[in-house]
Amino acid sequence: MSKPYVIGIDMGGTNTVFGIVDARGTVIASNSIKTAKHSDINDYINELYEEINRLIVANDAVDKIHGIGIGAPNANYFTGRIEGGVNLPWPSPIPLADLVSAKFGIPVAITNDANAAAIGEMTYGVARGLKDFIMITLGTGVGSGIVVNGQMVYGHDGFAGELGHVIVKRTNGRMCGCGRTGCLETYCSATGVARTAREFLEIRSEPSLLRNLPIDEITSKDVYDAAIQGDALAKEIFEYTGKILGEALADFVVFSSPEAFVLFGGLTKSGDLIMKPVKEALEKNILSIYRGKVRVLISELKESDAAVLGASALGWEVKPLPAAN
Amino acid sequence: MSKPYVIGIDMGGTNTVFGIVDARGTVIASNSIKTAKHSDINDYINELYEEINRLIVANDAVDKIHGIGIGAPNANYFTGRIEGGVNLPWPSPIPLADLVSAKFGIPVAITNDANAAAIGEMTYGVARGLKDFIMITLGTGVGSGIVVNGQMVYGHDGFAGELGHVIVKRTNGRMCGCGRTGCLETYCSATGVARTAREFLEIRSEPSLLRNLPIDEITSKDVYDAAIQGDALAKEIFEYTGKILGEALADFVVFSSPEAFVLFGGLTKSGDLIMKPVKEALEKNILSIYRGKVRVLISELKESDAAVLGASALGWEVKPLPAAN
Repeated sequence: MSKPYVIGIDMGGTNTVFGIVDARGTVIASNSIKTAKHSDINDYINELYEEINRLIVANDAVDKIHGIGIGAPNANYFTGRIEGGVNLPWPSPIPLADLVSAKFGIPVAITNDANAAAIGEMTYGVARGLKDFIMITLGTGVGSGIVVNGQMVYGHDGFAGELGHVIVKRTNGRMCGCGRTGCLETYCSATGVARTAREFLEIRSEPSLLRNLPIDEITSKDVYDAAIQGDALAKEIFEYTGKILGEALADFVVFSSPEAFVLFGGLTKSGDLIMKPVKEALEKNILSIYRGKVRVLISELKESDAAVLGASALGWEVKPLPAAN
Repeated sequence: MSKPYVIGIDMGGTNTVFGIVDARGTVIASNSIKTAKHSDINDYINELYEEINRLIVANDAVDKIHGIGIGAPNANYFTGRIEGGVNLPWPSPIPLADLVSAKFGIPVAITNDANAAAIGEMTYGVARGLKDFIMITLGTGVGSGIVVNGQMVYGHDGFAGELGHVIVKRTNGRMCGCGRTGCLETYCSATGVARTAREFLEIRSEPSLLRNLPIDEITSKDVYDAAIQGDALAKEIFEYTGKILGEALADFVVFSSPEAFVLFGGLTKSGDLIMKPVKEALEKNILSIYRGKVRVLISELKESDAAVLGASALGWEVKPLPAAN
């Protein structure tokens, strides 16, 4: 008898959001807890268990959970651990999959946020039926999840798919949080758009609505608001951003020849302001054998549900727990 | 009863080389014919059949051939055809796999040269046991074959893995045969090394052994010969080439997190002249989570056998022919 539900858990530095999801991608019920509240990881796991169990009982889902999928920063699919320095209150590595599966008695799989998003799109979203696509998440940073022949690309160590850290400016590139310079995410994230705005405003002299704002507080949303009011400089900031992203996508195509890119995140809400230059730069820079073959899609998952849905999709792929002694 | 041999066919614009290969990668017998001699593709297939059949009979291999693998330019694994403009005397697309399997009565698989090389390394060479690696062929151009989780990456259309056409110089890049500018292969192929030599000799004024040669005839071999005689400019040409390649490899790592790169081709014979700057640039530019995890290996397959071995390895993976009516 197959179990009809999965649990998706999206673990962030501030909040952990979770939900019960069915096979069609409907979030049956969801809730959240504060991640950083507990200085002991076991207290965090206990609260997570209590809250999720409350949802399970209230929704008549006891013994109906196929698996638990977790999306978390630096989460490694192979080891089940969170590895490397992340913004969480506990020392890493954190054996998250083992802790959660031991507590719940349900098999658990984990991966990073962008991979979870890709699996979510493939399972419930705009990438259903696609076997070769690349997910690009445009948020505070730029994340990616690569699907080849229907399978997530994890690499030999579980850390594949960091396309936000491809170097797009080899000289005089922007300093990146990774310690290097010129990474894609320093230009094409929401933060990157704000940095571009500050650069443009400092270097150039033309008038702009953005000059009415304190320069250090400008956000990508401010740039969007100015652009839709017709502000030329703001529009140019999106063109600059989109061109860099489109050029990068053209380079990504030669790797896995995907049939589509799926873009997700705040920046995609800027619509044609960003999508038009992305598509133009992609088609202009693409190697001829791929021209006209690669679609650029925008996620259709509701943003408030997307992270939980992405994580939950991994819950369908868990391996059963070993039989108890 | 499993069949102990495969046939490997390496089809180039000038010559077609073929051989009978066993499961350990021993070339039992090999020969070649002129590709361009026949203006009709059927005459070419007929001669190929006669010559290969002669080898089969002479080596007691009748009914012992598991499959035929063919490496050819622009050969598409999915369609079995050679597609796109290539330096062959017949109009494309060429339904090569069907023509050869119909003639031989043996299942056939085809792919491009660099993918064949990757499968060859995985089956018989330095990549045995590796599930995630990237093959880079450094010849007249730069080719690549990407293996993820033990499987060749073909992409949705069969044309994945054209890493030689990643753009490494976004402005003032060299014109590439693909019609764009700044591609990796315009710098890091044998031809690229010769171009660098000409550029350096024209722009700069220091003495060099290379100045004794007609500038338009300088080859990468000439640069090598000068470098091992201690010529500073020649050594610097290799450093320049190796640095660009190492920087590109660092970017490739973020895609599939391979445990190794396998380099093959004439340029690798320059040894430390090129490998040292490649490894230095790779380690200097790699994202920290991958640092120290990625090996740079050089193919150990004998160069004269490598193309046939690579193609033959694909012969182990063929699907059986449909049963005759």
